Amino acid sequence: MARLLMKFGGTSVAGIDRIRNVARHVKRELDAGAEIAVVVSAMAGKTDELVGLCAEAWPHYDPREYDAVVASGEQVSAGLLAIVLQGMGIPARSWQGWQIPIVTTAAAGAARITGIDGARIVERFAHGEVAVIAGFQGLNKENGRVTTLGRGGSDTSAVALAAAIKADRCDIYTDVDGVYTTDPRVVTKARRLDRVTYEEMLEMASLGAKVMQVRSVELAMIKRVKTFVRSSFDDPENPRPGTLICDEEDIVEQQVVTGIAFSRDEAQITLRRVADRPGVAAAIFMPLAEAGINVDMIVQVASDDTVTTDITFTVSSGDFDRAKAILEKNKAQVGYAALQGAGDVAKVSAIGIGMRSHAGVAALAFKALSEKGINIRAITTSEIKFSVLIDAAYTELAVRTLHAIYGLDKS
Amino acid sequence: MARLLMKFGGTSVAGIDRIRNVARHVKRELDAGAEIAVVVSAMAGKTDELVGLCAEAWPHYDPREYDAVVASGEQVSAGLLAIVLQGMGIPARSWQGWQIPIVTTAAAGAARITGIDGARIVERFAHGEVAVIAGFQGLNKENGRVTTLGRGGSDTSAVALAAAIKADRCDIYTDVDGVYTTDPRVVTKARRLDRVTYEEMLEMASLGAKVMQVRSVELAMIKRVKTFVRSSFDDPENPRPGTLICDEEDIVEQQVVTGIAFSRDEAQITLRRVADRPGVAAAIFMPLAEAGINVDMIVQVASDDTVTTDITFTVSSGDFDRAKAILEKNKAQVGYAALQGAGDVAKVSAIGIGMRSHAGVAALAFKALSEKGINIRAITTSEIKFSVLIDAAYTELAVRTLHAIYGLDKS
Repeated sequence: MARLLMKFGGTSVAGIDRIRNVARHVKRELDAGAEIAVVVSAMAGKTDELVGLCAEAWPHYDPREYDAVVASGEQVSAGLLAIVLQGMGIPARSWQGWQIPIVTTAAAGAARITGIDGARIVERFAHGEVAVIAGFQGLNKENGRVTTLGRGGSDTSAVALAAAIKADRCDIYTDVDGVYTTDPRVVTKARRLDRVTYEEMLEMASLGAKVMQVRSVELAMIKRVKTFVRSSFDDPENPRPGTLICDEEDIVEQQVVTGIAFSRDEAQITLRRVADRPGVAAAIFMPLAEAGINVDMIVQVASDDTVTTDITFTVSSGDFDRAKAILEKNKAQVGYAALQGAGDVAKVSAIGIGMRSHAGVAALAFKALSEKGINIRAITTSEIKFSVLIDAAYTELAVRTLHAIYGLDKS
Repeated sequence: MARLLMKFGGTSVAGIDRIRNVARHVKRELDAGAEIAVVVSAMAGKTDELVGLCAEAWPHYDPREYDAVVASGEQVSAGLLAIVLQGMGIPARSWQGWQIPIVTTAAAGAARITGIDGARIVERFAHGEVAVIAGFQGLNKENGRVTTLGRGGSDTSAVALAAAIKADRCDIYTDVDGVYTTDPRVVTKARRLDRVTYEEMLEMASLGAKVMQVRSVELAMIKRVKTFVRSSFDDPENPRPGTLICDEEDIVEQQVVTGIAFSRDEAQITLRRVADRPGVAAAIFMPLAEAGINVDMIVQVASDDTVTTDITFTVSSGDFDRAKAILEKNKAQVGYAALQGAGDVAKVSAIGIGMRSHAGVAALAFKALSEKGINIRAITTSEIKFSVLIDAAYTELAVRTLHAIYGLDKS
């Protein structure tokens, strides 16, 4: 008998009618003979409402109290889905994080799951019962308090639970029908992928594709959880299969490049003629880290004087002004000749596990972009992706260009 | 050092502004040197909203899921009050029922508290921390599920917690400033009582005065919890004292009658010439009990034929038609000559612990009502109260009459 973890996000449980639709998806799988655990998010808008109440109570709210307040959203949707299922004659019960328990670290608002005891849920499968589990939340055993996993944490709950109950499959139901080669709003020829590797999905999620939360993909990769991304708005009696996130060896016809991701929310900072001495990188980046500013692409090249170096990096555009102010304050300490910045840049990335074994993949892109007159401001590469930083105005053109040259336009 | 349990109802925590007001009440008591635990209800309207969602999900919802859903309301208001207190520089933390734990029976939606371990809360008092506790909810240890105590259960949570932490006082903050001799909307001369005995308060609550929930008064009486009913809308810096519910011996100047209660929501049924044989009462009342119909006043008198009896009793007006239908169906089995009913009746009661030692208290009322032309349809008495059933049209007149003759008009 197959064992299945089904996860439904906030828009999929936004009202009783939508919850009924979710229940029909559950019923389809039950009728096919599966044992089923369901993870749900809070009803759409609910979490924002609760976060707003906390902020109104005190802008510097205690994150442990925030967790107690905000976790109530998933508790409600889990209870309601259990009731709807029962109304359809399907045995079901809701589980809150502390009841299973889903044990987490104490880091309120951003807890990490450290262990899940799936035994009681699995035991109930024998009675034909569907487990409906509140996502996004857990229990810290040291202080006995409710924790939340941070935004998007319901995906992580789902994958972790799938691993804990040894589910054969984890279906992430969302408002899109799978993972696409790129954003269909930018490239009309974007195609849904049948399969994508964990590694590729991880890069895509990190690089701005918002289908699944990064940590949940990472966890699926580590725990080898066979995960489908699929649409909750499909006809429950006849749904499309979605995209399978799986091991490399499960993918028969491997493309060199699987997808093009992009992020417009970038700003570039370049420090000219930085003294090329030990500790200079720390002098630049430690103060930024202490200010909570996330630094992404870092590129260092020798200056034209061959004695100093130029250092280029990106921050999110929201942190741009703060980052510049910190660097200007530390100018003497760091030792650089000039600070140059650009707030209006975008990062475009090509991802493909095939890059490991194919040379010259990135070079093809550089040539194509240059032919379109797109100036590349910086480049970073890893084993299975490369990213270029360009002027934001060229984002769509660059994405379409890369989508075409790597053969992703073909169906 | 005084230890205090403060309870705030739904209207007192209906928004962040009102929660701030609650926090100011807490601060006043803290500044006076007290150790404080607070019990809160859900924000006004919240419980109804959650109940509505459950009913929409399935009208025959599983009460255990209902409990999981509905308990979230108090969880939110407890967290928000803790945050507001922290914002004022007051150490505080919220507690859900399962965290303390408040242990209850498994009866979902109507659980009874079987035990509370107050040790962890008391331990935190030493750190100057205010405990903010979600009312209305508990934990059933056998099945590990959240339970609720039924409507008005937050009062019961408050009194039970006050007993568990050995509080010197339990302050029930509500939208009135105390217990009145009768409803001020009916009798303008109604006065707030400084003190009332547990026994009197219990009768008043049972007889329709909606200040405190019956079970909580019963519990206060059993556990001897010194309880104040007072207004949360008073100026937190200068509040009125409210009404103390206490032992008989704590009341110096005992009135014979303390208050007049009334209930318009009554219907009368009279069965004429019922065979006077063993088992006839069971034949009448068992089917009603099985249908969930609550029977109140029961009066039995010999019929004029001296062989059979007439039996009169009341049900709530909402159950009137159902009760008549059941009795008509069972006519042969019960054996009666005629069924008479009146849907438009009211019950007016006078309560006073002084009745125990004063004869003729009720007789005074019968005379006064008759002089006003009010016909008494039935009478029941107990040690500390008597009730008369009258036509509903005379309710206000009867209440004002009794209020006057027992000296309650005087300030």
